[in-house]
Amino acid sequence: MSGGELATFIGSLALVDHHSHGVAAGPLDGPAFEALLSEGGAPAPGMSNFDTPLGLALRRWCAPALGLPPHAAPQDYLARRAELGAAEAAARLLRSTRTHEYLIDTGFRSDELLDPARFAAVSGARAHEVVRLEAVAETLAGASVRPAGFADAFEAALEEATVGAIGLKSIVAYRGGFDFPPDPPAPTEVRRAAESWLGSGARRLDHPVLLRHVLWSGIRRGLPLQLHVGYGDPDLVLHRTDPSRLTGFLKLTADSGVPVLLLHCYPYHRHAAYLAAVLPHVHLDLGLAIPHVGARAAALLAETLELAPFGKLLYSSDAYGLPELYLLGATLFRRALARVLGDWLDEDALARSDAEHIARSICRHNAERVYGLGPA
Amino acid sequence: MSGGELATFIGSLALVDHHSHGVAAGPLDGPAFEALLSEGGAPAPGMSNFDTPLGLALRRWCAPALGLPPHAAPQDYLARRAELGAAEAAARLLRSTRTHEYLIDTGFRSDELLDPARFAAVSGARAHEVVRLEAVAETLAGASVRPAGFADAFEAALEEATVGAIGLKSIVAYRGGFDFPPDPPAPTEVRRAAESWLGSGARRLDHPVLLRHVLWSGIRRGLPLQLHVGYGDPDLVLHRTDPSRLTGFLKLTADSGVPVLLLHCYPYHRHAAYLAAVLPHVHLDLGLAIPHVGARAAALLAETLELAPFGKLLYSSDAYGLPELYLLGATLFRRALARVLGDWLDEDALARSDAEHIARSICRHNAERVYGLGPA
Amino acid sequence: MSGGELATFIGSLALVDHHSHGVAAGPLDGPAFEALLSEGGAPAPGMSNFDTPLGLALRRWCAPALGLPPHAAPQDYLARRAELGAAEAAARLLRSTRTHEYLIDTGFRSDELLDPARFAAVSGARAHEVVRLEAVAETLAGASVRPAGFADAFEAALEEATVGAIGLKSIVAYRGGFDFPPDPPAPTEVRRAAESWLGSGARRLDHPVLLRHVLWSGIRRGLPLQLHVGYGDPDLVLHRTDPSRLTGFLKLTADSGVPVLLLHCYPYHRHAAYLAAVLPHVHLDLGLAIPHVGARAAALLAETLELAPFGKLLYSSDAYGLPELYLLGATLFRRALARVLGDWLDEDALARSDAEHIARSICRHNAERVYGLGPA
Repeated sequence: MSGGELATFIGSLALVDHHSHGVAAGPLDGPAFEALLSEGGAPAPGMSNFDTPLGLALRRWCAPALGLPPHAAPQDYLARRAELGAAEAAARLLRSTRTHEYLIDTGFRSDELLDPARFAAVSGARAHEVVRLEAVAETLAGASVRPAGFADAFEAALEEATVGAIGLKSIVAYRGGFDFPPDPPAPTEVRRAAESWLGSGARRLDHPVLLRHVLWSGIRRGLPLQLHVGYGDPDLVLHRTDPSRLTGFLKLTADSGVPVLLLHCYPYHRHAAYLAAVLPHVHLDLGLAIPHVGARAAALLAETLELAPFGKLLYSSDAYGLPELYLLGATLFRRALARVLGDWLDEDALARSDAEHIARSICRHNAERVYGLGPA
Repeated sequence: MSGGELATFIGSLALVDHHSHGVAAGPLDGPAFEALLSEGGAPAPGMSNFDTPLGLALRRWCAPALGLPPHAAPQDYLARRAELGAAEAAARLLRSTRTHEYLIDTGFRSDELLDPARFAAVSGARAHEVVRLEAVAETLAGASVRPAGFADAFEAALEEATVGAIGLKSIVAYRGGFDFPPDPPAPTEVRRAAESWLGSGARRLDHPVLLRHVLWSGIRRGLPLQLHVGYGDPDLVLHRTDPSRLTGFLKLTADSGVPVLLLHCYPYHRHAAYLAAVLPHVHLDLGLAIPHVGARAAALLAETLELAPFGKLLYSSDAYGLPELYLLGATLFRRALARVLGDWLDEDALARSDAEHIARSICRHNAERVYGLGPA
Repeated sequence: MSGGELATFIGSLALVDHHSHGVAAGPLDGPAFEALLSEGGAPAPGMSNFDTPLGLALRRWCAPALGLPPHAAPQDYLARRAELGAAEAAARLLRSTRTHEYLIDTGFRSDELLDPARFAAVSGARAHEVVRLEAVAETLAGASVRPAGFADAFEAALEEATVGAIGLKSIVAYRGGFDFPPDPPAPTEVRRAAESWLGSGARRLDHPVLLRHVLWSGIRRGLPLQLHVGYGDPDLVLHRTDPSRLTGFLKLTADSGVPVLLLHCYPYHRHAAYLAAVLPHVHLDLGLAIPHVGARAAALLAETLELAPFGKLLYSSDAYGLPELYLLGATLFRRALARVLGDWLDEDALARSDAEHIARSICRHNAERVYGLGPA
């Protein structure tokens, strides 16, 4: 099997994208489009978010999907997109990914995005819901919940929110990072913390005790638990999201039967792969990082595949807002996988059947097993 | 000199493996074998430790050493190994490494492993002993040592344990990591700590003051001191083993005349190379990491050789239990060295005589100098 | 455009070296020369600082610039250098770099180095001054400044020191690292700290409150602010210089209008690139690291260009003392850029005009924009 044949094989595999957010519900003007191209939002004055590794990748791979030549200029790309209309552009881009299943985190600005059902219609694929724990807790802010009743109210709200969901997500990385005590807080601590938070009038859940309580409630709920790790917008402090700082929590949950999925992980993907190698329930992906690093996707994947067991790595785009990010996630991931496994084949480091097995596991089977996805 | 000639040259060099543990004394069944293939022990339910980068490397390189085709299936490999018998398999695998000297850490589960003398007989090489500091201290637990006499008793025990040894090792990385005060604890602190630990009835030495005392006693003993750094089993917390956290200790010991050897170091091998570049007594290796990362060994070595002086990098396998890990350590290390130096030759970044000098230093001469190894 | 054409194009671009220190004012004997080849100073006993990645690069690239064959032996190189004389060697090496503008940090052992005016004469380029904040503060030690007057005296001294300067630099990385409270200290804190420091008789500024005060005074001064990050001599503790630990300070200064330039960054260059991607005023370079890692420069640059916007990366050598480090900085940087962009061209990841735009931005235009450099 040559490298080209392997790329063709990997190109033919259906993907399960186990973590993304959906696409913008309406049209986007140039500045709104560009702001979605960077985790920092709008570009610095006088700069363009197209002048980045991601911008190059978008012009290279998305332009042809909309009928333009590769490397089309940003203004030409935006004009073509407007000409097609947001819905048609989204359909073309999403369908180019050959993704058969999507898991959609509905907990962030979901009013600006297509919901899973509409997303499924546009993409022509199945879409499942992943519920964000902190967002569920935040529905209790302003409600008439007494502090002593917070734990029960949250449990009930989580139960209700997860009817039909197939996974949970925590963004504790964005709320102080991973340097929290690893064990569940005591009921009296939770009550006192609820008193403080509910009494503050704030909606944003940032009380460290409640964040821990909500996380452990997620473990008790029993659905696979996704955790944001590493790279993201500047609401987080990068080194506080090193997954090594989660070691205590991960060891306490190792026998819970709940799969934990470390998302993104960059630039701590080697650390995450280490955890996946030594703890039975830890999995990881390279979502968000892969589309953003463009031509360097294979380098990240190769570093991850130094220690990651092949049954522990999943595919995700972590796309948010732009259908382009779905196309880039899928295209760059497939290319990266073909490059890494192709290099190994060229060096005779594995057999052809091994390469196919690994590709199938990562593109699809691992996600199907972790989330219990059945036939359509 | 072509890349192929360089690989042949490096293949012809005798290795000094300056850190490993020895091989299992008896036969291993499938699950026992597989558990030794991962720092996490037994695989997660439904998974196999062969389904990893290390598993691929084992099938590629160990299968031919036992007379099977490359990439033989795990069950065929295990069957062939059983057919040969553990002793014959070990002899074949170990002798394939062309290692002339081994330094054996005898401080971890040594009752399950061949001792240095028996290991020398099986491998056909010389074997030297490295004494684990914490293990010596733990022989005092339960002995009739009074707290006030702990320091003297430990000094005497260390003196006795190191008759004939050529190095020391510390695993303080596994006992809380490197965030300890860098200086030696005062005698009164040691006495109080000994009181607490000896009184607890625990055998495992985890009192931070005693760990520091034992470490500094090692410096005073004057033998080269190996320190576990980075990658290992989940008893450690990865980021707490970043060798940068040892900077204070390393600066205090810089003029002690005692070589310090940072072992494994992954994923902090760049940090370790930095310390080796700026502190005169600091050396490093990539043991454990190299066999586990399989086809990616050259990438790790190249990152290490960004800053590491060529006189500061040593070879080790850090093999434990399985003779396969010795073969993989040696084979993957030789290939990685040939790849990195070969690429540099191709780019005309060094002369042929430089490449040979660097290879000799790393494969053998640096270890001979550090440990004062004489002719057989 | 082939890889070779791109290398020629990049070779033809004038460089702005936005951070270096100047060259030794007088001749250097062998040991003095060698000590300047390592951030650790003199080599370990029995070793040579030529036996390093940097040493290989020096012999490869500097020897031909002085009329010797590539890979000349260290003793031949030093002999040739002595034969030419330090001034002639410096002129040949510096002029080989094709650097048109230098920004010189005058705050470290400047009495041993050529000042910017003499450096300009030797190098045949323009030289601008960058003022080190801590060095300005240290001029107040021993002066008859009262604690209550420290803040005003520093402000006046900074105003005077920066007449004609085009940038500021802080080495707070070397004075405890980045784990300081991110906001400016209150005037009463500054006064108390000044009392303590001025009263101590010490010259070295290491009071954490004064270091913060001086840093924030730099922001108020309004010139672009360079910050030492990561790799350097062993006065620093590597992990305390992870730029992620500066996140709070960087967020507080994001709207100040002051560009912040993270210098060196190794091995945290991915972290620095992340910050440059999400915060509008953050820029970075790979100075110091690039010459020291020799043949691996392209690998570092590629990792940096995973997230760094193309308008945020600058060139610098961070050369200190040896004109060789200027030549290596420039040569290895050009080669690395040609390699990374050439690989991307080969993969059709960007268009030829993109490659040229990115190269121009990084080699020169970004620095011209940040520092407001006008025509000569």
